[in-house]
Amino acid sequence: MSSLCPHNANDNNRHHEPSGPVLSRRNFMLGASVASSAVALAACSNAVTASTDSSAEQAADPQLHLTTATVPFDGEHQAGVDTPGQAHVNVIAFSLRAGNNAESVSRLLKLWTEDARRLTQGENPLGSLEPEMTTTPANLTITCGFGPRFFDIIGKPEQRPEWLAPLPKFSEDKLDPAWGDSDIVLQVCCDDPVTLAFATRHMHRAAVDFAQIQWMQQGFLTANGSRKPESTPRNLFGQLDGTVNPRKDEEYDDYVWINSTKQAPKWAQGGTCMVVRRINMDLDRWEILDRFSREESMGRFLHNGAPLTGTDEFDPADFEARDDYGLPVIDPRSHMALAAPAANEPKQRMRRRAYNYDEAPIPGSDQSSNAGLIFICFQQNPLTQFVPIQQRLNDGDRLNEWITHIGSAVYVIPPGTSENESTRDTYWGQSLLES
Amino acid sequence: MSSLCPHNANDNNRHHEPSGPVLSRRNFMLGASVASSAVALAACSNAVTASTDSSAEQAADPQLHLTTATVPFDGEHQAGVDTPGQAHVNVIAFSLRAGNNAESVSRLLKLWTEDARRLTQGENPLGSLEPEMTTTPANLTITCGFGPRFFDIIGKPEQRPEWLAPLPKFSEDKLDPAWGDSDIVLQVCCDDPVTLAFATRHMHRAAVDFAQIQWMQQGFLTANGSRKPESTPRNLFGQLDGTVNPRKDEEYDDYVWINSTKQAPKWAQGGTCMVVRRINMDLDRWEILDRFSREESMGRFLHNGAPLTGTDEFDPADFEARDDYGLPVIDPRSHMALAAPAANEPKQRMRRRAYNYDEAPIPGSDQSSNAGLIFICFQQNPLTQFVPIQQRLNDGDRLNEWITHIGSAVYVIPPGTSENESTRDTYWGQSLLES
Repeated sequence: MSSLCPHNANDNNRHHEPSGPVLSRRNFMLGASVASSAVALAACSNAVTASTDSSAEQAADPQLHLTTATVPFDGEHQAGVDTPGQAHVNVIAFSLRAGNNAESVSRLLKLWTEDARRLTQGENPLGSLEPEMTTTPANLTITCGFGPRFFDIIGKPEQRPEWLAPLPKFSEDKLDPAWGDSDIVLQVCCDDPVTLAFATRHMHRAAVDFAQIQWMQQGFLTANGSRKPESTPRNLFGQLDGTVNPRKDEEYDDYVWINSTKQAPKWAQGGTCMVVRRINMDLDRWEILDRFSREESMGRFLHNGAPLTGTDEFDPADFEARDDYGLPVIDPRSHMALAAPAANEPKQRMRRRAYNYDEAPIPGSDQSSNAGLIFICFQQNPLTQFVPIQQRLNDGDRLNEWITHIGSAVYVIPPGTSENESTRDTYWGQSLLES
Repeated sequence: MSSLCPHNANDNNRHHEPSGPVLSRRNFMLGASVASSAVALAACSNAVTASTDSSAEQAADPQLHLTTATVPFDGEHQAGVDTPGQAHVNVIAFSLRAGNNAESVSRLLKLWTEDARRLTQGENPLGSLEPEMTTTPANLTITCGFGPRFFDIIGKPEQRPEWLAPLPKFSEDKLDPAWGDSDIVLQVCCDDPVTLAFATRHMHRAAVDFAQIQWMQQGFLTANGSRKPESTPRNLFGQLDGTVNPRKDEEYDDYVWINSTKQAPKWAQGGTCMVVRRINMDLDRWEILDRFSREESMGRFLHNGAPLTGTDEFDPADFEARDDYGLPVIDPRSHMALAAPAANEPKQRMRRRAYNYDEAPIPGSDQSSNAGLIFICFQQNPLTQFVPIQQRLNDGDRLNEWITHIGSAVYVIPPGTSENESTRDTYWGQSLLES
């Protein structure tokens, strides 16, 4: 079995270190594309670890490049936030069973962190009888967050960030409580759907004595091999979705990572806030529109995502530009115009990391498809970032004609971890639970 | 827009020809792996067309290899049967609306064939306003089949194959009619989930005046890049699933492709029969077993799929072998022993092309996961191939403890097509509908 399970021999080696130089996760994945012209084969396995060990043979086979593609688990921040979007996501909301307390929740989070650390590196978690299901990490990331009630269960309501509560209701919302707030969330992302299913299953069964699944949202982007990882993916309206995103470490520090006790308590520094909105997209009525109307409602060209006043996706929008009739080129009620930060609010930005969903049509629905967006965003404080932006969109966005928010949940994402005792938590939320 | 949509200029070119030499679809995809050591970069885009045109630039970028990966649409047989399993499937069952007849159904099938021919080659279907959504074929195949009632609707019940009726009920079945027989089926397979969603949506809306979706089953295998295309994928029990499959053209001719009027009427020659069974797999109870018990119930080793009497996946099973206690090494009630063709029935074989499913848990279910297999198989005649095998499994398979058949549908898959008038149909079912 050792030939199929190269990591089996390490089952009892709880303290391994990454073999290559440690890079930030984001730069790490982007780096592969930069090097592509020089080292064609290495780039072939985009986002793959620069392998120096026994997996080198697999890495060299371009048909198997996902078997060696790993994203570091430990770090200052959790993976899955600044990580370029993998092809698939399972967002799994758990409710903690009655009887849990700080001690039992610590036990769950220790187990989960250990298992996630191994699964994401293509290693078999302790006690798993399915080593063959863990040999293709395919850029797996597992990100954990805590919901509002979590802090009452562990008996530390004073440690709850002030903003961690159900978001204010927007007038256009048609929220289904089935997609609402929960005690804990796992965001599992992966370029391989079988690895995704196994990691989801493993994390679920590891938790079964502590928690049960409240909802699971399954989404997708393009496959690894269809799009450069740093490029902007398309949603099911055909729009490039996520153009305005942080790309530099300074931008993440400026408005994504929590780095002040004004934003959240001390234990949460290095973490972030995750908002999960489920947005139904009415394809039937959208597809009636011609391309001009579609582009006008967005404020951007469909083919390359450029603002209607520009030619390149990343051109700044000129909201003052007028056409021959003196009308604004970019409709002030277009999605882009309303989503842009107000002039005096430069921090009204966030890391968008949305995934498409497209499930079997709902019998009896007035829509022939059951499709939309799992809109996931990360920020320091949703009340000063997501909420004011969404309030403007709620009140005026032309896209509201075709989209409806049907689910809403908010979580605090604790900071990253370290495998060895150090200045960082060794498991998710350690400094919160042991304070 | 031309830079993003290389095929746009061809929108009115209805009669293009493949640029490379024509190979059988199956050999075509397998060929890439054989050549891999010689031409590393070409192999990097496994299953990619040997590109000689303007897509060469994209094909050369290993991060974009799926943008040029196409499976020929036209051919003696439809694609999606002998094609190695792509990462994703949507199996879509349609019911024809009241009022349809041979004429309207011909119109639908002409539209569909034209659209599928273009979509699978990465071209924008006529009239589609979303050319950006079709530029990544990612080995897309679209396969069409007809259910029992189809022949009554077109007024040709005498052209229905004798075996085309709901399968006999097996005593262990717990069939949900929600996954039952339908008038038409489309099997859409693709290595990219966004292309899959768009192709599904496009085919659906092209049919909206004629038909509505009765059910849709969504499944997955490993991603392109996780496994050599010719290798056997794993199911969610961790078993290699599909070891005993035809691999040579002669095997397909022997028991998959219809090639005698004893099997089906003349119009169906070159076609096949597709059975779709939805099989729930109870992960909770399966995972209680140790590996030995799991392997015994299957008759094969988990790590490499070898029979318990062998060392390699493709070793022939020795059903006579006994252990030190005189007991059979392979349990006669193991899945493999019962699935093997009876000694006097060498044609009890079929092309298995199963996909995994793993959806959100069903609230109130006694299983914590909603997972299983979309078991799809192709054969000349289900009554002499699938049914006797399934009867043995129904009556004795040890795996029945953990699996339950919950859906069943059967279709005739019409033969392949040619774009230009020739001896072959130009659209799916032409010789049936115009006879």
